[in-house]
Amino acid sequence: MFTKTYVDRVLDPSFGNWKRLFAEDSIRVHKAHLVMLLERGIVKGETAIAIKRGIDSLEREFSPPDRIPDGVEDLYFLFERELGSLVGPGTAGFLHTARSRNDMDATIFRMVLKRRLLALLDAVLALERTLEARSSDRSPFLLYTHGQPANVSTLGHYLSAFLLELQEDAGLMLEAFARVDESPMGSCAITTTGFAIDRERVSSLLGFAKPIANSYQAIATSHWLSFPAAAGALLADDVTRLAADILHKASCEVGVATFPDELVQTSSIMPQKRNPVVLEHIRIQSGLARGRFESVQGLFRNAPYQDVNELADASVVELLEAMESQVSALSLLEETVRLVGVDTARVGEIALGFGATTTELADAMVRDFGVSFREAHGVVHAFVASGYRKDTLREAYGKLGKGALPYPDERIDEVLSVGHFIEVRTVPGGPAAEGMASVLATAAEGMQRLATAVDSARAREAASFAKLHEAWSRIC
Amino acid sequence: MFTKTYVDRVLDPSFGNWKRLFAEDSIRVHKAHLVMLLERGIVKGETAIAIKRGIDSLEREFSPPDRIPDGVEDLYFLFERELGSLVGPGTAGFLHTARSRNDMDATIFRMVLKRRLLALLDAVLALERTLEARSSDRSPFLLYTHGQPANVSTLGHYLSAFLLELQEDAGLMLEAFARVDESPMGSCAITTTGFAIDRERVSSLLGFAKPIANSYQAIATSHWLSFPAAAGALLADDVTRLAADILHKASCEVGVATFPDELVQTSSIMPQKRNPVVLEHIRIQSGLARGRFESVQGLFRNAPYQDVNELADASVVELLEAMESQVSALSLLEETVRLVGVDTARVGEIALGFGATTTELADAMVRDFGVSFREAHGVVHAFVASGYRKDTLREAYGKLGKGALPYPDERIDEVLSVGHFIEVRTVPGGPAAEGMASVLATAAEGMQRLATAVDSARAREAASFAKLHEAWSRIC
Amino acid sequence: MFTKTYVDRVLDPSFGNWKRLFAEDSIRVHKAHLVMLLERGIVKGETAIAIKRGIDSLEREFSPPDRIPDGVEDLYFLFERELGSLVGPGTAGFLHTARSRNDMDATIFRMVLKRRLLALLDAVLALERTLEARSSDRSPFLLYTHGQPANVSTLGHYLSAFLLELQEDAGLMLEAFARVDESPMGSCAITTTGFAIDRERVSSLLGFAKPIANSYQAIATSHWLSFPAAAGALLADDVTRLAADILHKASCEVGVATFPDELVQTSSIMPQKRNPVVLEHIRIQSGLARGRFESVQGLFRNAPYQDVNELADASVVELLEAMESQVSALSLLEETVRLVGVDTARVGEIALGFGATTTELADAMVRDFGVSFREAHGVVHAFVASGYRKDTLREAYGKLGKGALPYPDERIDEVLSVGHFIEVRTVPGGPAAEGMASVLATAAEGMQRLATAVDSARAREAASFAKLHEAWSRIC
Amino acid sequence: MFTKTYVDRVLDPSFGNWKRLFAEDSIRVHKAHLVMLLERGIVKGETAIAIKRGIDSLEREFSPPDRIPDGVEDLYFLFERELGSLVGPGTAGFLHTARSRNDMDATIFRMVLKRRLLALLDAVLALERTLEARSSDRSPFLLYTHGQPANVSTLGHYLSAFLLELQEDAGLMLEAFARVDESPMGSCAITTTGFAIDRERVSSLLGFAKPIANSYQAIATSHWLSFPAAAGALLADDVTRLAADILHKASCEVGVATFPDELVQTSSIMPQKRNPVVLEHIRIQSGLARGRFESVQGLFRNAPYQDVNELADASVVELLEAMESQVSALSLLEETVRLVGVDTARVGEIALGFGATTTELADAMVRDFGVSFREAHGVVHAFVASGYRKDTLREAYGKLGKGALPYPDERIDEVLSVGHFIEVRTVPGGPAAEGMASVLATAAEGMQRLATAVDSARAREAASFAKLHEAWSRIC
Repeated sequence: MFTKTYVDRVLDPSFGNWKRLFAEDSIRVHKAHLVMLLERGIVKGETAIAIKRGIDSLEREFSPPDRIPDGVEDLYFLFERELGSLVGPGTAGFLHTARSRNDMDATIFRMVLKRRLLALLDAVLALERTLEARSSDRSPFLLYTHGQPANVSTLGHYLSAFLLELQEDAGLMLEAFARVDESPMGSCAITTTGFAIDRERVSSLLGFAKPIANSYQAIATSHWLSFPAAAGALLADDVTRLAADILHKASCEVGVATFPDELVQTSSIMPQKRNPVVLEHIRIQSGLARGRFESVQGLFRNAPYQDVNELADASVVELLEAMESQVSALSLLEETVRLVGVDTARVGEIALGFGATTTELADAMVRDFGVSFREAHGVVHAFVASGYRKDTLREAYGKLGKGALPYPDERIDEVLSVGHFIEVRTVPGGPAAEGMASVLATAAEGMQRLATAVDSARAREAASFAKLHEAWSRIC
Repeated sequence: MFTKTYVDRVLDPSFGNWKRLFAEDSIRVHKAHLVMLLERGIVKGETAIAIKRGIDSLEREFSPPDRIPDGVEDLYFLFERELGSLVGPGTAGFLHTARSRNDMDATIFRMVLKRRLLALLDAVLALERTLEARSSDRSPFLLYTHGQPANVSTLGHYLSAFLLELQEDAGLMLEAFARVDESPMGSCAITTTGFAIDRERVSSLLGFAKPIANSYQAIATSHWLSFPAAAGALLADDVTRLAADILHKASCEVGVATFPDELVQTSSIMPQKRNPVVLEHIRIQSGLARGRFESVQGLFRNAPYQDVNELADASVVELLEAMESQVSALSLLEETVRLVGVDTARVGEIALGFGATTTELADAMVRDFGVSFREAHGVVHAFVASGYRKDTLREAYGKLGKGALPYPDERIDEVLSVGHFIEVRTVPGGPAAEGMASVLATAAEGMQRLATAVDSARAREAASFAKLHEAWSRIC
Repeated sequence: MFTKTYVDRVLDPSFGNWKRLFAEDSIRVHKAHLVMLLERGIVKGETAIAIKRGIDSLEREFSPPDRIPDGVEDLYFLFERELGSLVGPGTAGFLHTARSRNDMDATIFRMVLKRRLLALLDAVLALERTLEARSSDRSPFLLYTHGQPANVSTLGHYLSAFLLELQEDAGLMLEAFARVDESPMGSCAITTTGFAIDRERVSSLLGFAKPIANSYQAIATSHWLSFPAAAGALLADDVTRLAADILHKASCEVGVATFPDELVQTSSIMPQKRNPVVLEHIRIQSGLARGRFESVQGLFRNAPYQDVNELADASVVELLEAMESQVSALSLLEETVRLVGVDTARVGEIALGFGATTTELADAMVRDFGVSFREAHGVVHAFVASGYRKDTLREAYGKLGKGALPYPDERIDEVLSVGHFIEVRTVPGGPAAEGMASVLATAAEGMQRLATAVDSARAREAASFAKLHEAWSRIC
Repeated sequence: MFTKTYVDRVLDPSFGNWKRLFAEDSIRVHKAHLVMLLERGIVKGETAIAIKRGIDSLEREFSPPDRIPDGVEDLYFLFERELGSLVGPGTAGFLHTARSRNDMDATIFRMVLKRRLLALLDAVLALERTLEARSSDRSPFLLYTHGQPANVSTLGHYLSAFLLELQEDAGLMLEAFARVDESPMGSCAITTTGFAIDRERVSSLLGFAKPIANSYQAIATSHWLSFPAAAGALLADDVTRLAADILHKASCEVGVATFPDELVQTSSIMPQKRNPVVLEHIRIQSGLARGRFESVQGLFRNAPYQDVNELADASVVELLEAMESQVSALSLLEETVRLVGVDTARVGEIALGFGATTTELADAMVRDFGVSFREAHGVVHAFVASGYRKDTLREAYGKLGKGALPYPDERIDEVLSVGHFIEVRTVPGGPAAEGMASVLATAAEGMQRLATAVDSARAREAASFAKLHEAWSRIC
């Protein structure tokens, strides 16, 4: 008998987690294991049939109690007891041949986590699709460095940059998924077993890519938790960065990004307030996700490299909650990206008011008149300092000793125009249509890679259900 | 003129970092950029030749002052000024055509970081090689779960588990390396330029895999810092886990792992002390690495997605220091793994004293007499509870109603022996030689993959030096 | 109308939090505010009476719907709407005079948090009491440094050390409590109001120590969240340290700390296993608490110093969950400390087997024969290295040139005995009864301080309920 | 002989730290300990005199080698060896009576840390003084919530809010200082000693407030590292919040905060750029400080509660570096606060353009005409939505059924004026002069408390030098 505190604080919350999240996949593991035991001749046909009937019956009818019953450590022991009461404890006891809660639990946790990771990747993909759709938006946009207007560009150039960031995050998440997608089954406690089991078969029936190579690693590793957490944290931080950036662009005073009313809240006291707090909520939900992702990673610090309880349901639940917050943030960001508008008039106003196109004027002089960039930069700097007075510009140019500046005023205005600034940036990676071609191609490729990976993971999972169902039906 | 505090607290420390760490690669960037400008006809031959001579001369002779000179923001502006004083400011000013400190700095930081990442991977590889060498060590070893003796196994089984962990960490680090190994050059401030530059050429002359697809991303991304930091943190945590585990195994009372004197410290007051504090130092240096890796990641939280100073030398230095701590921890761990011994007598003593082979006795009964695992488990549990009395074992077996236990006493001892426990675990991933075959094959493959990746990165880097040297020589 | 995603991901979860956690204290705030408005003549008597009746009626009868209704941002606006439908929107609208959701929400969150912090401090106090009770336990115990047996001491000496640690943590938590225990009411949005309100009165009616000095700080500060989080994190780390230490002492091979069956779990596969996993669960629950405490703190990094949504229900809930995990860990630790036993025979065995009392032998020689400590240390070191051979000891002493070692063999054994080692350590802070006197006095004082602080906070809270009830009744 | 790797990676870096940072205070500890041993009769007069001469001579003349010499673990053993070669090892060996490196090191680290904490508090105080000086600045200023203009206020109101935040951080840092300011001396390894030492006397000679109560705690506690780290992290986060907020206010488009040229950097490519990057550097240096403070705390997670090497020089150095970054950030912030200006015209422009004073118009109607706040809020909301058309305002008011709005147009303008908004906010904590009175009083009190605490800590330290010098001189 455990102490009341232990039951209340440890066993019962864990029992609750198991009922809510892990019960279904437990059954899949029982089935796959029994199929394999029978195929390998480790249990006899009649025993297997009896156990199968018991499991089928429990699957249909057994509903665990609200609280953990006395004298039972966890849902597994309760299940074993129930099975025993259906088919006799002697017979039921064969099911646990050549396995342990260690390998079973690790397997079940991974199965649940895989599904959730795919759901997270769905949310990433949805956001990527919206970003891609808007990456062709050629509305002039204002981009900043160090919080100050720097260059003009297009909305598509800006959003496609983030799209590529996201694809890199997704790439790491896929790498993390691969760490989850390996089967511990057959590792038993930590050293496998003397029974001639077939680890490949169980792995395949449960939809895993393959069995984990070393049985000790299978039980002691934290990577199926820590790798997704690390990838999630990177993703979360990126999301906070974009949110912080758009918040600035959407502020009253800047106003180059605009928000529809359905994403804006008001104040209970200030009649004028229109807060696009959706951006704050993106930041917060990503921030909370970040904190929990880090929390999961932190659990393993200085925890001995062996089977520890950090590898159990409490940590898995923490990770799932982190992922759920992240999905929220991604969904809100997807909506934001879909609905955000550009105030192009305001873009032009700030661009010209704060000289965001003046680099191009210096560049044009270099190209057109052979002055060096540093000289041209100096001339334009004087122009800026004067408040964009063309006479100052001409005077500064004159001092270079190359005669009068050959540009008529209209040419100066043209060179300084927002449209011109964008059009000439045709270098691969730049905002002109020619520059964006390679960007869009790279992005399309990345999305294809992610979509394919998600689809094929789902297909393998679906196939494993069919395979297990078929093998299970054959026990009769 | 900046304020004294600003110079002392910001500009001068940064100047110091640049001199110490980034000056050399700056020159490479100047050269590659000039080569490209000339090839593309953006600067004329005579201008390029003059600038080349200036750069060559500065490379040979210029040594920046101890403190940042007045009126200069950073090493770059100092270099430009020096170049100007050698070849005339008008001519020198052409070098900065179609580039910005933004893309240059990001490029230089990545070049330095790439080299250091390869050095870190060298340390990982050295540790992997030692782990691999010891993975064939078949000395019986004791493995624990939840801090209690669980199963016997071999030293090789144990260490190869960690070897595989390390390979997964290294895989992620390679992924991170790929994020560093892309060239920002040509992105200029953030939107490229109107000059018809060749980003591919510069990327190749500097040894990068390719130019970054989107120019805004090239400047605003944190991935070249945050991805290595995330991978490093995972590696660091894994190292602390192994250290914690070996610490326990090397403690006086456990003593299955033994340490030579050259890794053991004494006490200034307690005559009896022999502290294998190397393990604590591994934990601490990994812990400090962990803290700094996290510190680097944390900088980007809520930092707007634009060019921010978090993407500059202070963060790079923090990351390099994290990596240096990690290299220390890895080197110490390599030495530990190389020198650690096994006290096999003590392994046997604990194994039999605490029942670490009794699972096998239960399993054997299942296989030999067809009782169910749960029944056999119960019988052996009674045996354990009695303090390993064979009469209790026989009595408990008798109660199953299957007659007397057919094993003679010697057979029981044999089944419980350390050697037998290991030998029967031939399942792939288990400690028997047959079980280890697939483990060792997987490990060998993984090491090959890592070694090849490191070698090919180094080869590309070396080739780029030759290519740049050749192109540079042609300017004349 | 907000978008569906926004409602699902932001408004509705927040509405759920408000209903579950904050609704009750909202009513207290409405009441205290109305009392003050009336007392100050800001609303007229008849208006106040009407509003009072509305609030009383809503308090009795209103039960908010499951999901947030359309067209409402939060529970507050719903409440205002309901109140309006009871007493007329014109009249209801007077209640919101001279306040804002900003100051109200911050006030309500602090009220809830205060109660929970007191509950956390209760759990700390309960643990302190158990530690104090066991601090008088003079059973010999073995203490370690760097994982190796170092000195013998008593269980009480060891546990009282941790008791004092805990008191320091509690001291910081009380400091954090003081940061929560200040009233934002009257700050309105951020700059107070032109109405002649009485902030002191509302603060007192709600049980706060005082109003916050600066109205902008009142709304923008994170300290009511970040200070408790920081104190909680320190507490959590300390708990993991003690758990790690006891885990070692309770391991099979060490065994100086013993555990009763009701805190020990078994294995489903290994018949011999007895895992005192309660210690792992303490570590994990403290670890999860730590992660979430850190998560809360991390939210404020680079978040502008102004009213941000990080100061709202999602963060509060994260903090409450962190505290709940911490309470679990503390309860489990309290039980552990209460039930842990000492195997004194094993203490003696290890102490003598690994020389944990030999420092005393060196010290005794210094005192008795005037040799220097370093010489005595050398002599005893030779004794240890020989495997505790007295002839080696005598020989080494002889080499000092001070004649034969005057101790008879029995005196050597006595000096090396566990009891003697403890008894002579009478220095304040040492394990002898005389040494412990000051320790116990300090501990008693610390507990008294904490208990008094908690009691007086509770008393003020209770008094405020009475005061508010009385003032509220007078509106009629 | 230790391995080369161990020497290179552990012993030598530690030796370097000791020489650079801890050598001087080691001497103080030797002296205080010898004084006490003599006073207590534990060493004889002639022995003490000989040792004194040796120490004096080493203090004057000994300069440790660049690298750690062979066969020596650390600076302490080298010092003992040198002392032995001066006065004979037999005599020198008396100095280590009744002490251990454990208590000595912990004591020395605390002594250094105390000085550095006082230096950090100096930087806090300097910033507080500047904030206080500017807290009387009554320039109208614009304050934001959720990134949108919310209310007008004064610069002093804003900065005094942060001043109070800082005082709360400083209060916690003082609490942390108290955790450092306790003497471990006399704890020896962990259990004190059988010698009749005087812990109070040594504590007092070294300038500590008192000896640590429990000798095991004295050695095993992390609080002298973790408490300052926790307080530092809170301070660092607050600094990032203010930096983020001012960055927004100083951006081109907002521009209510202005920066002198000496804090502004330019671009190498964009002629128009004026980046107040000092704010970014404050954020980064605080961010790096934050990361390292957290790094120090993280080291203790799951580290057994015993003497561990986490309590040694590597961690101390990490903490000192964190503090140094924090001092940089504080100095830069002090300069920023001192030099920041307000563009009051721009404040007015934004305030009226975005309705930041409209709350007051609603409030005025409530006060003047007895409409309810919610009604007035609705009327003003319509006014805002119309783009501040007075006819719309009057029309909306008319619909309330209380007749025409009695305000003439000039009164409306007056009520909406920036000055009026501020002047009426006389509630304690508000921006009017009357409101600020209590704010300034609270701030002055807080500064006094901090200044007094720092002064008295310094005075105690100075007195201890004199006391030790006097006692030392008496040994002759």
